[in-house]
Amino acid sequence: MTQRYLNLTSLSRALEIMRQRFPPSGHAESMPLQLAVGRVTAEPLYAEYSVPIADIAKFDGYAVKSHETLGALDQRPLPLLTYLGINTGDVIPPAFDAVIMVEDTWEEGGRVWIRKSAAPGQNIRRTGEDIQAGELVLPKGHQIRPSDIGALATYGITSLRVRAVRVGIIPTGSDLVPPGTLPRPGQTVETNTLMAEAYLRGMGATCHRYGVVPDDPDRILETVAEAVAENDLVLVSAGTSTGSRDHSRDAVARLGEIVFHGIAMRPGKSVLLADLDGKPVFGMPGYPVSAQTVLREVVANLLLWWGLAPPLIEEMDARLARRLTSDLGFDEFVPVSVGQVNGTCWATPHPRGGGIQMSVVRANGYIHIPAGREGREAGEGVRVSLTAPSATVARTVVCVGKRDPVIAELGNRLQDSGYLLHCCNASTIGAVLALRANTCHVASVVLPDMESAWNDLVLRYLPGVNLLRLPVGMAELGIASTGEPDPETLALLRVSNRPKSQAARALLDAWLEREGIGHPPQDPDLAAGAEMRVCSVGEAREAGLLSFTPIGYESFNLVIRQEVAAEGGVAALIRTARSREFRASLLATGRELAGGSGDEPLNPGDAAPARN
Amino acid sequence: MTQRYLNLTSLSRALEIMRQRFPPSGHAESMPLQLAVGRVTAEPLYAEYSVPIADIAKFDGYAVKSHETLGALDQRPLPLLTYLGINTGDVIPPAFDAVIMVEDTWEEGGRVWIRKSAAPGQNIRRTGEDIQAGELVLPKGHQIRPSDIGALATYGITSLRVRAVRVGIIPTGSDLVPPGTLPRPGQTVETNTLMAEAYLRGMGATCHRYGVVPDDPDRILETVAEAVAENDLVLVSAGTSTGSRDHSRDAVARLGEIVFHGIAMRPGKSVLLADLDGKPVFGMPGYPVSAQTVLREVVANLLLWWGLAPPLIEEMDARLARRLTSDLGFDEFVPVSVGQVNGTCWATPHPRGGGIQMSVVRANGYIHIPAGREGREAGEGVRVSLTAPSATVARTVVCVGKRDPVIAELGNRLQDSGYLLHCCNASTIGAVLALRANTCHVASVVLPDMESAWNDLVLRYLPGVNLLRLPVGMAELGIASTGEPDPETLALLRVSNRPKSQAARALLDAWLEREGIGHPPQDPDLAAGAEMRVCSVGEAREAGLLSFTPIGYESFNLVIRQEVAAEGGVAALIRTARSREFRASLLATGRELAGGSGDEPLNPGDAAPARN
Repeated sequence: MTQRYLNLTSLSRALEIMRQRFPPSGHAESMPLQLAVGRVTAEPLYAEYSVPIADIAKFDGYAVKSHETLGALDQRPLPLLTYLGINTGDVIPPAFDAVIMVEDTWEEGGRVWIRKSAAPGQNIRRTGEDIQAGELVLPKGHQIRPSDIGALATYGITSLRVRAVRVGIIPTGSDLVPPGTLPRPGQTVETNTLMAEAYLRGMGATCHRYGVVPDDPDRILETVAEAVAENDLVLVSAGTSTGSRDHSRDAVARLGEIVFHGIAMRPGKSVLLADLDGKPVFGMPGYPVSAQTVLREVVANLLLWWGLAPPLIEEMDARLARRLTSDLGFDEFVPVSVGQVNGTCWATPHPRGGGIQMSVVRANGYIHIPAGREGREAGEGVRVSLTAPSATVARTVVCVGKRDPVIAELGNRLQDSGYLLHCCNASTIGAVLALRANTCHVASVVLPDMESAWNDLVLRYLPGVNLLRLPVGMAELGIASTGEPDPETLALLRVSNRPKSQAARALLDAWLEREGIGHPPQDPDLAAGAEMRVCSVGEAREAGLLSFTPIGYESFNLVIRQEVAAEGGVAALIRTARSREFRASLLATGRELAGGSGDEPLNPGDAAPARN
Repeated sequence: MTQRYLNLTSLSRALEIMRQRFPPSGHAESMPLQLAVGRVTAEPLYAEYSVPIADIAKFDGYAVKSHETLGALDQRPLPLLTYLGINTGDVIPPAFDAVIMVEDTWEEGGRVWIRKSAAPGQNIRRTGEDIQAGELVLPKGHQIRPSDIGALATYGITSLRVRAVRVGIIPTGSDLVPPGTLPRPGQTVETNTLMAEAYLRGMGATCHRYGVVPDDPDRILETVAEAVAENDLVLVSAGTSTGSRDHSRDAVARLGEIVFHGIAMRPGKSVLLADLDGKPVFGMPGYPVSAQTVLREVVANLLLWWGLAPPLIEEMDARLARRLTSDLGFDEFVPVSVGQVNGTCWATPHPRGGGIQMSVVRANGYIHIPAGREGREAGEGVRVSLTAPSATVARTVVCVGKRDPVIAELGNRLQDSGYLLHCCNASTIGAVLALRANTCHVASVVLPDMESAWNDLVLRYLPGVNLLRLPVGMAELGIASTGEPDPETLALLRVSNRPKSQAARALLDAWLEREGIGHPPQDPDLAAGAEMRVCSVGEAREAGLLSFTPIGYESFNLVIRQEVAAEGGVAALIRTARSREFRASLLATGRELAGGSGDEPLNPGDAAPARN
């Protein structure tokens, strides 16, 4: 039953078809006022009565008849004739037409005196000054703010009709286990419907999540039919791809008409839209980032068309820190971290891929590469849709390079200074080049503990730049294997299962050299299996590889341009990294630190590595 | 017991004192993950296990031993030796180290063939590719987004600790009645605490509203003491001013120490902060806009300092449409409507005043005039804090001039075209000048139905400008009074109780002229009371003035520059105003319309008014 997408619809065309097929349907629900923040009015709201409901005093003082005060002057004070002591908010009796503030009067001889005549209406809040009975307070289609809650209540409105869409969400997949379960290998925690509910509730939709339906075409069909009857819109999670266990398409095809299946969009290509009894049924891909993209770019678009509240997304101009490729004809969405380096906002991409949820968690925005573009060049201006408040961008410290628990812990502690550390994954050379291009505040680089490393891997790319090097961790690497490997097997590490990290490769090659182990013969049958690799002691233990032959140390370093070391976020990062508390936490996690004071400003001329 | 503020504290100083006195206290609460959107993490969150938890297949195909596939070429296909059919997401058994996609193979002679060798690790999602067990997911201090909900659940986190502040809110005032009650004159609907709760809940605070406490010092003291014991922060609504019924200050002064009373800020001057057992107690002014300002500028500032989530406020640069004065030394906040006219964003101020809630409802933002400035000039660049999404500014049609139920209804209907009508109050001359300065899309002007009015009141200020005039309503004005007035009394209308509207004044003067009624004698005792005024029949009826002497018609007109009449929002407004449905609704509200087609493009040369 393997089938390919017959043809991918472009994103813009898909949205157009969708809007044509499913026009706004006017769904609404009534709710008490105090729950309506963020919701959108379904009907105009009018004041029940005038506010103020009568003429009232603006200040404490005396209600007077203005014509009786005519002629009062500084040189010719007059006593009040008819008057009434009055407090702020008190009703002005019909006989009076002005209020004189108490501080503009004085008592003398049992009478109240004034030096200035009162104008008619003076210091009176007129009936209806704020609003007239029957006047429009809010038009339909208005998203309610907290201040509107107070105003509506003031004008006599305590419940109202707001736009509402009932969304049924069906998780499918025999591999699914509920959140909070430790998944066995091959199992997936069912979280996409939780995320979808959180997202759609934010737009004012009412969500009902159904129980997990296994990969059984009949059960899926049955649940979809039930959900369509009970809701205005249905989301079927997963099973929309074209593998042998993807039954969602067939289920909806049997119940209604497929509107489109497959959009030229990444992530989220395998989205499906069907029309069941005039109601939209979406098939949402199973990869979490794909699902998020489909929700945001497709499902939310329909809900907006139907009049629900848009999720508030701030946008910002930035320059792209590195080149991004994209297939012509595909709309691509790429998570990025935006930070301000040297006065320029740079957007550094995170790894793409529907399964890498952490890319989205770590990012503070995303960029859209439209279908008509084959990617974006480094340095090109891009528009970033932010997923964090724009005010946080100025407080974001961008680190490019090796991600590591040490960096994460550093970022966690940096929060105390009000700064946010964003770490974008890159190789050591990628990190050094980002530092050279001035697109990041900090490079995190892993260096083999060898004489020439600092010079070869860092300094040579940054000639003439004053650098600050903060070693934040050391780890011993070794060759881990199931049994004690013989030299012939070890030689295989030169060609197969070679470590990806530059530092580990350098240490391995140097060790093989020292041990006199040469190149292996060209016999593929002897290639090293997954059972031998270069890693740390901890990783070896975790993988159950009991033999560990140490080959050397790698150090984990933050590298910073001296010229920015005193700037707010960077300075705070340096302080945090040097702090006793952070260093103590490193010891607790078993990460040894490079000896000495912990950081050494190095000039290009100094070729000395952190440790010899 | 009348007392003045001893001295007003500047806003910046008040915030500084407040933050010093009440440092972050680390309040937090535990909650289920799915309720945590928008909340701020109180602790860092780490992955419970690696994701994926084992090496899994990225595609449908075959798990293979990569070294067995070496040597396969287009010219020399090889059969697979050891292999296992596998689906996307299936676990890769330990013996295998690569996956070949099904579409890169074919079956022949009972064997599976390939044309290309597999690299180790190919098409495998490695254990921990998304995240490693124990790796940081979110640092402390992170505001949770819907996408984070899915990620956290995926990584085994189903409940978490978030920052939390318990806020007790006490409404005080003997004049207060609960929302939903029709207030009698002198009563106030208690809505500020409802608004405060909606606002603070949005920041992640937990609010408890106490029952209304009357103006009784002992009862207030008792409730404040109770609230301080039960909460981290207390808001006392109203009674913070210095009138004879303002007891809040004395109550808190008896329980603790006043930190400040009175900030040089408008609105919101009478705010009070006290320290009761180390907990902050705010006295919030009773005027709703003042209360909102104190919440936003003072209370929210403390909650931010304590680590709660900032309310998302977008900002935008605009030019100020008209001059605003402000007292030196006072921080002022002025509601504005921002719209884009001729490519420039103009911010038009709404009336200020703590009691005019509708100014805030009608606005889409506010500007801050800092204490060091004596106002802002027309045309000056200002930074606007938006209270509506910035995306709506481009869809905002700004109308300056007379507010009227007709305009409100038009705005309500304009929503169907996706545009928002903002009407900023101004006199006819103010509206015409705004049109001349090109700071609004539409002017709404009221004209007396007189030969020269259009020319005298509109055209002469806009020489050489092609205008479109859309009459949208007519109303008959008359002199309303309790009894039949004699000419001598009528003459008083020339000097006292004169109508504020230019149109009404013109009609009145013309009518008095026609009736041969001259000027009144200079005797103040004969001044017209509140019992005689110029108004419409409806207003006369509402005010219980049974005698009505018609003096003429006024017309209500929208005036638009022809050059913008085809632009999106303006064109939609014109279409809506001309629509049969809108015209029918006018009839239903008893507003007669000017005869003919309803609108007439007029050139400066045409002095013809809409109706002669």
